[in-house]
Amino acid sequence: MKQVALVAFMFGAFSAGSAFAAGGREIVLQGTDAVPACSSCHGVKGTGNPDMPSARLAGLNAGYIIRQLDSFADGSRKNDTMGPVAVALSETERKAVAAYYAGLPAPKAAAAARDASKIAAGAAFARMGDWSRGIPGCSQCHGPDGSGVGALVPRLTGQSAEYIEAQLKAWRAGTRKDDPMGLMGGIARKLDKTEIASVAAYYAAAPNVPAASLGKALTKTSSSGSGKTATFVPPPDSAIPDNDFGKMVRLGENIFRDTQRYAAQYVGNTLNCQNCHLDGGRMADSSPLWAAFGEYPAYRSKNKHVNSYAERLQGCFRYSMNGKVPALGSETLLALEAYSFFLAQGAPVGVDMPGRGYPALKKSAKPFDYARGEKVYKRSCALCHGANGDGQKSADGLSVFPALWGAGSFNWGAGMGNIKNAAAFIKANMPFSQSGTLTEQEAWDVAAFVDSHERPQDPRFTGSVAETRTKYHNGATWMYGRTVNGALLGAHSPPSGRR
Amino acid sequence: MKQVALVAFMFGAFSAGSAFAAGGREIVLQGTDAVPACSSCHGVKGTGNPDMPSARLAGLNAGYIIRQLDSFADGSRKNDTMGPVAVALSETERKAVAAYYAGLPAPKAAAAARDASKIAAGAAFARMGDWSRGIPGCSQCHGPDGSGVGALVPRLTGQSAEYIEAQLKAWRAGTRKDDPMGLMGGIARKLDKTEIASVAAYYAAAPNVPAASLGKALTKTSSSGSGKTATFVPPPDSAIPDNDFGKMVRLGENIFRDTQRYAAQYVGNTLNCQNCHLDGGRMADSSPLWAAFGEYPAYRSKNKHVNSYAERLQGCFRYSMNGKVPALGSETLLALEAYSFFLAQGAPVGVDMPGRGYPALKKSAKPFDYARGEKVYKRSCALCHGANGDGQKSADGLSVFPALWGAGSFNWGAGMGNIKNAAAFIKANMPFSQSGTLTEQEAWDVAAFVDSHERPQDPRFTGSVAETRTKYHNGATWMYGRTVNGALLGAHSPPSGRR
Repeated sequence: MKQVALVAFMFGAFSAGSAFAAGGREIVLQGTDAVPACSSCHGVKGTGNPDMPSARLAGLNAGYIIRQLDSFADGSRKNDTMGPVAVALSETERKAVAAYYAGLPAPKAAAAARDASKIAAGAAFARMGDWSRGIPGCSQCHGPDGSGVGALVPRLTGQSAEYIEAQLKAWRAGTRKDDPMGLMGGIARKLDKTEIASVAAYYAAAPNVPAASLGKALTKTSSSGSGKTATFVPPPDSAIPDNDFGKMVRLGENIFRDTQRYAAQYVGNTLNCQNCHLDGGRMADSSPLWAAFGEYPAYRSKNKHVNSYAERLQGCFRYSMNGKVPALGSETLLALEAYSFFLAQGAPVGVDMPGRGYPALKKSAKPFDYARGEKVYKRSCALCHGANGDGQKSADGLSVFPALWGAGSFNWGAGMGNIKNAAAFIKANMPFSQSGTLTEQEAWDVAAFVDSHERPQDPRFTGSVAETRTKYHNGATWMYGRTVNGALLGAHSPPSGRR
Repeated sequence: MKQVALVAFMFGAFSAGSAFAAGGREIVLQGTDAVPACSSCHGVKGTGNPDMPSARLAGLNAGYIIRQLDSFADGSRKNDTMGPVAVALSETERKAVAAYYAGLPAPKAAAAARDASKIAAGAAFARMGDWSRGIPGCSQCHGPDGSGVGALVPRLTGQSAEYIEAQLKAWRAGTRKDDPMGLMGGIARKLDKTEIASVAAYYAAAPNVPAASLGKALTKTSSSGSGKTATFVPPPDSAIPDNDFGKMVRLGENIFRDTQRYAAQYVGNTLNCQNCHLDGGRMADSSPLWAAFGEYPAYRSKNKHVNSYAERLQGCFRYSMNGKVPALGSETLLALEAYSFFLAQGAPVGVDMPGRGYPALKKSAKPFDYARGEKVYKRSCALCHGANGDGQKSADGLSVFPALWGAGSFNWGAGMGNIKNAAAFIKANMPFSQSGTLTEQEAWDVAAFVDSHERPQDPRFTGSVAETRTKYHNGATWMYGRTVNGALLGAHSPPSGRR
């Protein structure tokens, strides 16, 4: 273990600059004249102490640790012990400590999985949240594996339950408020004690959680999103029957929520189905599956013939996922169809249900504008989707925030490449967990900005951008085939890929 | 024309015996000492006279004409002119006259298509009937082409509207009652004046009816069958939209009602979908499509996996139609899915609706019995399905009454090969247009009789009847693999075919 730590330390030192890391180790183990040794609370191996509780720091992202020290120092994160410590550390020392801890191996799990029902409830909540109250699943930002995203979102696995609980309560009480865009406070204030306790228990035990307890315990009706227009409530996950049909539904849900892992062979970018269909396809005004399922077979002007639901799903893979089309009759399509059917239970066939698709926006008052959109993007989108629109992955490499343009995004054939659709989606659903905070004009502008970037070629490309525009993108809300910043969109499509 | 009539006469004479036909011609054209010339009312060419109205006899089935003369003679068909004429004709003379008229070419149509809206309404009614009042479409027994079936059901096309109207009114009034099993009287008593007039107008003009007027004009809600358990009413045909989607729905309906013509390449027997799913898949307790559509994807024990609706449809072709399976994504499956979807409009997804499938029967009080079943069959089924269970076709060769066993029937893999299913279907739906007249015991017995006959092999045949029985037919209500009348069922399956 020591050897591993040492190797990690050396690599850490190499990557962060040796002066920092060396100093970091001394500060952690011995302290400075002004501060006690960090290890006295956080442990020599950075594992933290559940009894205090203090944080597990080993393996946390260095940038994230620095941000926390900054927060302690400026008071946006209140803590009687850490406040003075952070103030006493110089910027150089903060970086050194952060780099040292980041280099230590993260413990696999903070605690053995014990209280099975609590953990199972936490696992389900971490995955699904409760969108009827506007709460996304934790995994939506912390990653499907809970390993965190860069300096933005901390790894949760391996953290003690006590510490996670204390932090969620601090977010809720407002004693911790250094979260970008107020994302975490907004969510924590909606959580009740039981949810906090179960989620904390889950992440403390993760990933060593018995597979059987995953995704099964949610008994509440996860619904259609707060403040949304739907009147239909799909059945809860707990209603999935425990038989062969239920297995197919669960597979469908897994594919839908974590397409990168469960349908990897058909995916050519960084997206999961639920990036555009929030809450695992349950959310109203976010193209919910329960409203889509009963609408097929239907004629689609996109391909000018009557499409079965299975063919409609193929379209998603071809364009939005920029991938390969699963064959009709394949388990992937069947599972997605079974999951959609399950969610649609009780919904009427052939009826245009409130909450279907995205609510259409009025034409923007001012013409949509790239420059205004860029400002909105930087303020409200870049945090998660990245300054270059290429999204972010979890520490352990799973796609968390989808790429909005470039090689890792949807291709030009996708509906989202049409500003009209993107604006409608954004207005109703973005920023994530803060929907409704953008004006219609802002939604139009930022959608125009996003859709004015290059992305993988339309699979129907005829060989000519002009001709392809005329055939498939011939409208005022398509940027394909137009020149932006001196470059003809569609002419320089990147090779597609999952990055 | 004279020459044609002569040739027809010669062939008629040849087939029916020259003594009869020669005598027939003389009687028709000159009369006898006791009767006037038939031609004085029915015309020299047998075309009938709409002004009287008298029947068009040219091209009618000889057996049917003989039966009518017998009915006039014994008074079961009352007519002041024809009664004395028929009595005055000897049996030999009746046969001669019948053979002569049967040999004359049937006119293409009795009248030019004039009143388009009346004809269109009649065309729709002839096709669909109104099962909400227990009225099947005329085409169900007179054939999709109206050419009639053997001596049992007369050709209607080419008959004058006046004559058809007069006959329907006679059935309704009870002055004509020579119909086998009371089938025609039972139906005519439910018809109103408008229906009688429009149907008569349609058949008088058929087949020279503008294609555009076919299958479009029914504005009533053709519903779920009288006395049935359903609460759901599918939308009327008139609600099929006039666009590309509607075209697909109409194709699906055509395939469903007239599978022999619209999906010929996938059919290996004499059946149409609506033989088991009455009223074009609308009828409750007859496996209606509107109840089936929203139940898929679903796990089926038959093939031990989750089936999409499309795969479920494939199963019908493989077993019930003893045919070839249309590929997933084929127009045939898509059209059937679109038609089902149309009928299910407003029905809830995933809900077991009243009227779905066939109402399960209680276990029969006495064990089902071949000999008792045979009696029921002869009394109530053989008229349409034939003494040998091989069904009947229309005069012009279209399948009308499906074969119940033998080469032209469903194969051993079909659900109907299970006595339990067959009995449930029969009890709820047979005899055609007279459902509810058999007791449960009679339904069990006649189902056992039907399913105790050889039929095409189960496509899953392993090479051994015993093994195939064990794998797929191992229940008390399957006769496959049992010995009946000294023959092992399944061991002598006929080559499949459409006859």
